[in-house]
Amino acid sequence: MKKNLWKVLLWGCAVAACVPALAQFRKPDDAIKYRQSVMFIMGTHLYSRIGAMSNGRSTYDAKVAAESAELVALLAKLPWVAFGPGTDQGMTDAKPAVWTEQAKFKDLGDKMQAETARLVIAARAGDLETLKVAYRTTANSCKACHDVYTSQ
Amino acid sequence: MKKNLWKVLLWGCAVAACVPALAQFRKPDDAIKYRQSVMFIMGTHLYSRIGAMSNGRSTYDAKVAAESAELVALLAKLPWVAFGPGTDQGMTDAKPAVWTEQAKFKDLGDKMQAETARLVIAARAGDLETLKVAYRTTANSCKACHDVYTSQ
Repeated sequence: MKKNLWKVLLWGCAVAACVPALAQFRKPDDAIKYRQSVMFIMGTHLYSRIGAMSNGRSTYDAKVAAESAELVALLAKLPWVAFGPGTDQGMTDAKPAVWTEQAKFKDLGDKMQAETARLVIAARAGDLETLKVAYRTTANSCKACHDVYTSQ
Repeated sequence: MKKNLWKVLLWGCAVAACVPALAQFRKPDDAIKYRQSVMFIMGTHLYSRIGAMSNGRSTYDAKVAAESAELVALLAKLPWVAFGPGTDQGMTDAKPAVWTEQAKFKDLGDKMQAETARLVIAARAGDLETLKVAYRTTANSCKACHDVYTSQ
């Protein structure tokens, strides 16, 4: 009886811990779609806007670069809440290690966010060479996490 | 000969007009995915965050409401560039009328953006009743466009 009580209490705590993340999405699939949407927009602005300018595929436009960098830095804060319980299944490329190596996953996420903040400063400086350096380090910080935690 | 020259010139102008929109995406499918991603994040923050607070499904949190409103207003500026040539085909729910009724489509888009700007002001006021009113008018401005221009 006591054992069952403990089970009920532990289950209750586990559910309570999940609620803040889950409450923001109607179902796990919505959370997966949310984080994928965030990353797709980030990727578009980082690679197809700033990256294209950095690699000479498009003309350098300091204003567009700064706006894209600001958007990337803002979006970089969003996907983490969408890695809640139940979001390891379904239409996701995220590997199970995301949930078994939470500290390492968080560390790489924090480093990426720090690089996007530096990218904003670099983009606002209005100098292409400065932007190129910040673009490479930001792109590498994305890659560092995706290489380990996605199957893509 | 003169007729062909005109054709070439007109074709050249048409291509040049498409370039700015297309150049931001590697292919039309990327543009479609981009605008869908933007709208999914907007929907999450408008309906599942602000809407949930407005309808009493979640606890009112003025800070979260303001952050969500600011994100919605920022994202509201983004999808339009992704309705370029060739993006009427493929995995899209957008009706052909988007491209044949450009003025009306733009007008509804502009109205929605204006409502999101008002939503930011309402959310920053820190009063739930004010938020509820702005939420309803913003949601209606989204619906006004989706009712006409998407098959969903």
